[in-house]
Amino acid sequence: MDEIIFSLEPGGARPVFLELSEALIAAITAGRLRPGQRLPGTRALARTLGLNRNTVDAAYQEAVLQGWLEARASSGTYVARDLPDGTAPSGGTAKNAPVAAAKVRTAQPRLSFSDGAPDVRLLPVAEIARALRRVLRGPDLRASGAYGDPRGAQALREQLAQHLAAQRGLAIDADDVLVTRGSQMALFLAARCLAAQGAAIAMEEPGYPLAAAAFRAAGLRVVGVPVDESGLSLTALEQTVTTDPSLRAVYVTPHHQYPTTVTLGATRRVALLDLARRHDFTIIEDDYDHDYRYDGRPVLPLGARAGGDVRLVYVGSLSKLLAPGLRLGYAVAPPELLGPMAELRQAIERQGDLPLELAVAALMREGDLWRHLRKSRRIYEDRRDALCDLLRARLGDRLAFTKPVGGLALWARLGQGQDAGRWSAAAAAQGLAVTPASAFCLHGETAPQAFRLGFAGLDGREMAEAVDLLARASEEVR
Amino acid sequence: MDEIIFSLEPGGARPVFLELSEALIAAITAGRLRPGQRLPGTRALARTLGLNRNTVDAAYQEAVLQGWLEARASSGTYVARDLPDGTAPSGGTAKNAPVAAAKVRTAQPRLSFSDGAPDVRLLPVAEIARALRRVLRGPDLRASGAYGDPRGAQALREQLAQHLAAQRGLAIDADDVLVTRGSQMALFLAARCLAAQGAAIAMEEPGYPLAAAAFRAAGLRVVGVPVDESGLSLTALEQTVTTDPSLRAVYVTPHHQYPTTVTLGATRRVALLDLARRHDFTIIEDDYDHDYRYDGRPVLPLGARAGGDVRLVYVGSLSKLLAPGLRLGYAVAPPELLGPMAELRQAIERQGDLPLELAVAALMREGDLWRHLRKSRRIYEDRRDALCDLLRARLGDRLAFTKPVGGLALWARLGQGQDAGRWSAAAAAQGLAVTPASAFCLHGETAPQAFRLGFAGLDGREMAEAVDLLARASEEVR
Repeated sequence: MDEIIFSLEPGGARPVFLELSEALIAAITAGRLRPGQRLPGTRALARTLGLNRNTVDAAYQEAVLQGWLEARASSGTYVARDLPDGTAPSGGTAKNAPVAAAKVRTAQPRLSFSDGAPDVRLLPVAEIARALRRVLRGPDLRASGAYGDPRGAQALREQLAQHLAAQRGLAIDADDVLVTRGSQMALFLAARCLAAQGAAIAMEEPGYPLAAAAFRAAGLRVVGVPVDESGLSLTALEQTVTTDPSLRAVYVTPHHQYPTTVTLGATRRVALLDLARRHDFTIIEDDYDHDYRYDGRPVLPLGARAGGDVRLVYVGSLSKLLAPGLRLGYAVAPPELLGPMAELRQAIERQGDLPLELAVAALMREGDLWRHLRKSRRIYEDRRDALCDLLRARLGDRLAFTKPVGGLALWARLGQGQDAGRWSAAAAAQGLAVTPASAFCLHGETAPQAFRLGFAGLDGREMAEAVDLLARASEEVR
Repeated sequence: MDEIIFSLEPGGARPVFLELSEALIAAITAGRLRPGQRLPGTRALARTLGLNRNTVDAAYQEAVLQGWLEARASSGTYVARDLPDGTAPSGGTAKNAPVAAAKVRTAQPRLSFSDGAPDVRLLPVAEIARALRRVLRGPDLRASGAYGDPRGAQALREQLAQHLAAQRGLAIDADDVLVTRGSQMALFLAARCLAAQGAAIAMEEPGYPLAAAAFRAAGLRVVGVPVDESGLSLTALEQTVTTDPSLRAVYVTPHHQYPTTVTLGATRRVALLDLARRHDFTIIEDDYDHDYRYDGRPVLPLGARAGGDVRLVYVGSLSKLLAPGLRLGYAVAPPELLGPMAELRQAIERQGDLPLELAVAALMREGDLWRHLRKSRRIYEDRRDALCDLLRARLGDRLAFTKPVGGLALWARLGQGQDAGRWSAAAAAQGLAVTPASAFCLHGETAPQAFRLGFAGLDGREMAEAVDLLARASEEVR
């Protein structure tokens, strides 16, 4: 008996349960799992895969919602006999192969539209290596003692404060900054310090799934608030705030909404700050790729306008400027919140990576980082334009989009009757990874039919090939 | 009116509340705070310092317990009128200066007995810089995609599995290993995955304070179990386990107990595993400086003997081999625990620092790391011997110790009538940092009178000077 080996990518942008549900769906479309076949219990599969049982549960539910699996009361979960329209399992050799996997393996598709990552090939490696070498040999590391400040290296906090004051209008100094492991840890720390028995946080839907993961891991209940063509709906948020007294915080991505890329309108910004004032909740503002703006001027963050009467945590990342593998982010918050966040950070991991922090501070001070930013911004602007041109030429009748004014991704809305999940599965079979909107929704069934297409990691040839694969996959699911 | 500026070292090995209580005590001994002076409320001081109010509370309590402060019911906290014996506030110029501080500042003593950190000056910087440069320029970083595996780089997990199998007798492979940010994050992740409403964890007392911080941050209640000259008391542990049904886990440092450096005896090891089997709790074994053993053979960890019927999380660190600022640790755990730990790690910080992980994997594969270990082990052995000789010569009548067979610290027990807190405060005034046993105790009042003297970071000249300062401070508090 053959075993079905799932190829999961736990490092991807998507929650593990979605990876697993898509692996299940891929196994069904490939004929490795047959209609009517019984799946193993969630407990057993969780043990085999080394996953949490809740994760497997969520994956099964997702696939049930999409029509690929059927849950039968007190009997278990089965591959649906009546598969989603047009799916003819492709024969296949495995007959009712048992679902199991010795290990979770990491597989890479040939090409990916990321969720908005920069191109690691552009990384200024010579400059970074030189800066690290100088730090490792220099006096700063020793002068700082064996262990460092859990708030991050003073030199880096100073550089970040200067940069954020100059570029983002924040009236801060180094003591207002906490260096973290990417924005991810900043979100976790803020959420955990705001968490209390039964407390909730509101976030955009569709929104950033790893933010939801951070908030849940911190012990907060996550409530979705709809997003429209001007960003977060303030009407919906006000209703949520008014009816849910346990709401402690609102997470928002005003500059380029994640995943739809729209900028939160000026009126809504004022309304959001006003709402926070009246209902005394904390705003967590994620300004994640503010450095990339191609058309018009960057919009200043809420943090620049909040004033002392709004409690706001401003979160950002250097990973979009360098590489996702170099984990550097930061939080700016009032002292009564930043203090506990720094203490928690110490409890979690003691401190950050001091050599890396000092090296990046040097790259900022000496301008290398800004030269790299200017260079990559030009390249990414070209890639955005190339993607827009290719999509219009090849897929103009099947999807619509607004050219993004900044950021590293494009939001493509599919035409009537098209299914992003099936299209994405067909693309995966061709070796192209593309993320459907359901991956960004707390409730998959209400997800719009759309893709988030991160363009920064694809050069001209790769972009043409990726759009070609996307167009071919579209033919298959027509 | 002058303000009292506290110099805190939030990056130190000690919890922030201890730093604060010692800063308060230092301000009293220096005469900057006068007997009878009223201290600000905990809420106000917490806000000014950007600390959690609980931290300030704990600091006040600690200073009250030591006799430096007095709490008066419904009136507040005051500097004690009757200061601990022999403390004559040294005149001073500040008259009842208000207690406040604009910012928490970082100050460094001139010399430190660390809590057991390696000497960062021995770091093989050329080798590390070369390895990082190769990684940044090479194909591995790109091949791994923009984002990496939240369990850590495959290459590093393979090297760690091989090393732990060969050196520590663990029957594991790469898939059993989760790379973390130092052992600190491994402790937090394990604890958070074991946490449940009202659950408790037992740990050695005296024990590792940052472990307690990690467990509390994860939501566990921490219960202390006494340590004697053979390590953790199994009699006391059995009593705790039997009477406290909420106990989910036991944290233990069997190789070199932290802070007392003793090795857990063979009979107790068998008894601990047996107890875990019978009462179904998880053992968290911290094998933190197993690489440093000078006399006799290293003792294999519990993890090598546990068998499949004991649930055990084995935790270790590469920070003791390299530098504390390079945050690399690891956890080995059964899949049903390692899976959720990896998921939580992703929620907290997405992934580790891929370039650093790949570079260290290369240093392990090519042997540079082991050459560095052999070299530094010889140096630390000499430093241990030098410290023992100096202590016997200068302070033989005032403290006693057993020469540690391994590790990077020595446990010095003070003679009758001597007060480690006062001695340590007098040393601090001389520019020498030395940590009293109370810093390692959940309940300061039961702390033994002892010091943990980390010797690895002091060369011959510094060691002589540090012991000289310690001896002088001892004269002052005689």
